[in-house]
Amino acid sequence: MSDAERLDWLRLARTETVGPVAFQHLLRRYGSAVAALNAVPALARRAGRRQTPVICSREEAEAEIAQGEADGAQLLLACDTAFPASLRAIDPPPPVLWALGDARLLQRRAVAVVGARIASASGRRFAREIALGLGEAGLVVASGLARGIDAAAHEGALATGTVAVLGGGVGDVYPPENEALYAAIAKRGCIVSESQPRRRAQAKDFPRRNRLISGLSLAIVVVEAELKSGSLITARLAAEQGREVLAVPGSPLDPRARGCNDLIRQGAAVCEGLDDVLRAIEPLTGFRAPPDPYSAGNHDDPAPELIERVYGLLSPTPVAIDELARQAAAPAGAVFAVLVELSLAGRAELLSGGLAARA
Amino acid sequence: MSDAERLDWLRLARTETVGPVAFQHLLRRYGSAVAALNAVPALARRAGRRQTPVICSREEAEAEIAQGEADGAQLLLACDTAFPASLRAIDPPPPVLWALGDARLLQRRAVAVVGARIASASGRRFAREIALGLGEAGLVVASGLARGIDAAAHEGALATGTVAVLGGGVGDVYPPENEALYAAIAKRGCIVSESQPRRRAQAKDFPRRNRLISGLSLAIVVVEAELKSGSLITARLAAEQGREVLAVPGSPLDPRARGCNDLIRQGAAVCEGLDDVLRAIEPLTGFRAPPDPYSAGNHDDPAPELIERVYGLLSPTPVAIDELARQAAAPAGAVFAVLVELSLAGRAELLSGGLAARA
Repeated sequence: MSDAERLDWLRLARTETVGPVAFQHLLRRYGSAVAALNAVPALARRAGRRQTPVICSREEAEAEIAQGEADGAQLLLACDTAFPASLRAIDPPPPVLWALGDARLLQRRAVAVVGARIASASGRRFAREIALGLGEAGLVVASGLARGIDAAAHEGALATGTVAVLGGGVGDVYPPENEALYAAIAKRGCIVSESQPRRRAQAKDFPRRNRLISGLSLAIVVVEAELKSGSLITARLAAEQGREVLAVPGSPLDPRARGCNDLIRQGAAVCEGLDDVLRAIEPLTGFRAPPDPYSAGNHDDPAPELIERVYGLLSPTPVAIDELARQAAAPAGAVFAVLVELSLAGRAELLSGGLAARA
Repeated sequence: MSDAERLDWLRLARTETVGPVAFQHLLRRYGSAVAALNAVPALARRAGRRQTPVICSREEAEAEIAQGEADGAQLLLACDTAFPASLRAIDPPPPVLWALGDARLLQRRAVAVVGARIASASGRRFAREIALGLGEAGLVVASGLARGIDAAAHEGALATGTVAVLGGGVGDVYPPENEALYAAIAKRGCIVSESQPRRRAQAKDFPRRNRLISGLSLAIVVVEAELKSGSLITARLAAEQGREVLAVPGSPLDPRARGCNDLIRQGAAVCEGLDDVLRAIEPLTGFRAPPDPYSAGNHDDPAPELIERVYGLLSPTPVAIDELARQAAAPAGAVFAVLVELSLAGRAELLSGGLAARA
C-alpha cells in the first residue's frame, strides 16, 4: 500500500462519526479508503445530516503520523501484516493502532491479566506470579497499565513479554505512579493504543481500550474486582469475542472478590493458578488466521426510502440489526448500509455485537 | 404394622451382609421382612456362602429398641409416616433411623451446611450467619455435628430448627467438645442416626452419615473444605441424589478454599450468602412425595446358573448393573436379584448409583 493510501486509511479512521463498524462497512462497500472518504459527505447528507461530517484532512493525518514517529511509535493499519491477527479477528477490528516498543510481541499468543486498581497485597502477588508463570509458558501478558492488579501483571511478565493497552495515546503516561513501569514496558515490552499518540485518556476511551485488551488475548484472567468494575466490562467483551474468561474466586466477606465470584456464577472458569489458564487455552492453541475483515462484498446502494424506515424503527435502546431487517422487511445487508449512513449523519450508533441504536 | 412386623423390619436391617440395597430388594421380592429373613440363609447358600449370614435375633432387636427408648429416642422405619419423605426418596433409602429430640423437624424442608473441622473464624461466622438466615426463611438446617463449620451451622439454627446426623448412635456424643451443643440439639432440635443407639462411631459410618445429611436436604452448602475432605464426599453424594450443591468460594491462597473452589469448577453453584441458597432451592419448593420404595415388584427366582455367570463378570472395580445385565445377556431384574444373593453371601458389594463390585 502506498503512503498516500495509508494516509487515507488513517483519515477515514479519524473522520467524525466513523467508528470501527462504519469504517469496515465503508471500506468493503467502496473498495478503498479514498473512495469511502469521497462518499461520506453524500451518505451523511442523504441520511439526514445538515452539516457535512468533519473529514480528517491530509495535513491532520500527516501531523499525527509525524508526532507518533517522533515519539518512537509505529502506526499499524488493520491491513498491515504487522497488525495483530488476534485484533483482526474481532468484530469490528480497530482500523488503526499505534505501537511503542517491540511490536513483534503483538504477533505472539497472549493472555490478559486484569483487575482492581485498589488491590490487596495478596491479589497483587497472585497477579505477578501468574504473569510470571504465563511468561515462562511462552505467553505474552496483556493488561491496561492501571494501578494495582494491572501493574503487578505487567511487572511479572516484564522479562518475558508484556503488552500495555492504553485508553489515551501511547505517549500518555497515566497514572503518574506507573511512569517507571511505563518506561520499562516501552523499552522491553510494547505499549499500544487506538488513539492519537499524544491524546490524553478520557473516560470514553476505556471501553475501547478494554475491547483491545481482551481482543489481543486468548483468555482473560480477572484477579480482583468489585461489582460494577471496569474489569467486568472487559470480561463481558472477552466473552462476546469468544475469548476464555477466568476469574480468581475469593471469600464472600471480601468486597474485592464480589465481581470475580459473580463472573464465576455467570460461567467464567475458576482460576486458582497457572494450570487453570493453560487448561482453558489448550483448545485454542490452533488459533487460526481470521478472514480479511475488509474484503469487498456486493454492496449496491440501499434505496433512499429505506433510510427513514430504518430510522423510525430505531430507539435509544440497542436492537439487533437482524431484528431491524426483519421489521423493515429489507435485506440485512441493505439495512446495515443504511445504518452506517445514519451513523455518518450522527443519527444512529453502531455498537459491537451487531447492535444499533438511535444516537 | 404390628410390633412383631416392626421387629422383623429392624432384624432384617441389622442382618449381616444386608445393606440398604439388599434390604429394599428383599422386601420387594418377598413382600415382608419376615419372609425375607426366612429366605436369606438359602439365598446366601446358593450364591456360594459356606456359613449362614448372622441373622439379627428377636432378642437383639428387642434390646436395641429398649436401649434407644431408654435413651429417649424414637425408632423410625422407612415405611412409617413419621419417616422423612426426603430420605424415602433417596436410592436406596436407609431402612431404619433413630431420632432423638423433635422428630417433626425431619418433615420440614432442610438445607445442609457442612464444612471443615479446622475452620477459620470467618468460615465459622459465615456458617452461623447463613444458618441463621436459613432458619428465618423457614428452613431446617442439617449438619454432621463435627467441630468447626458443622458446629457453627447447628448453633446458628438452634432457635429455628436444626438436625444433627451422626455416624455413631444417637447416644454417641462425639466430638467431646460438642457435648453442650449435642445436649441443646437433643432438647430443641433433632439428632438422627442409622446406627444402633449406643454404637460408637467408626470411620466406615461416615459415608453413610454423609449420605443422610444430603438426603435429608434440598441443597447442601459447603463452607470451607480442603481437597479430599469428607465434605466433598457429601457434596458428591448430594449431586448423585439430585440435590443442589453450593460452595462458598475463597482465595486460591487459602488451602481451606481449595475444595470449595474445586466443587465450583465441577459445577457447584457459587454461594456468597443466603440469597444464593434460596435461589437454588426455589425450583424445588414443590418437593413431591416419592413413590413407595418398597412396593412389591414381579420377582421370580433367578436361574441358579446365572449366579456364577454374574459373579464371573464381577471385579473389584464397580460396574453398572445394567452393563452386567448386557454382558450376562439376562434381564436386569434377574441380574439384580442375583447380585443381592451374592451380596448376602458376602461375595459381591451393592453400591449406590446402580453399581456393583466383587467383594
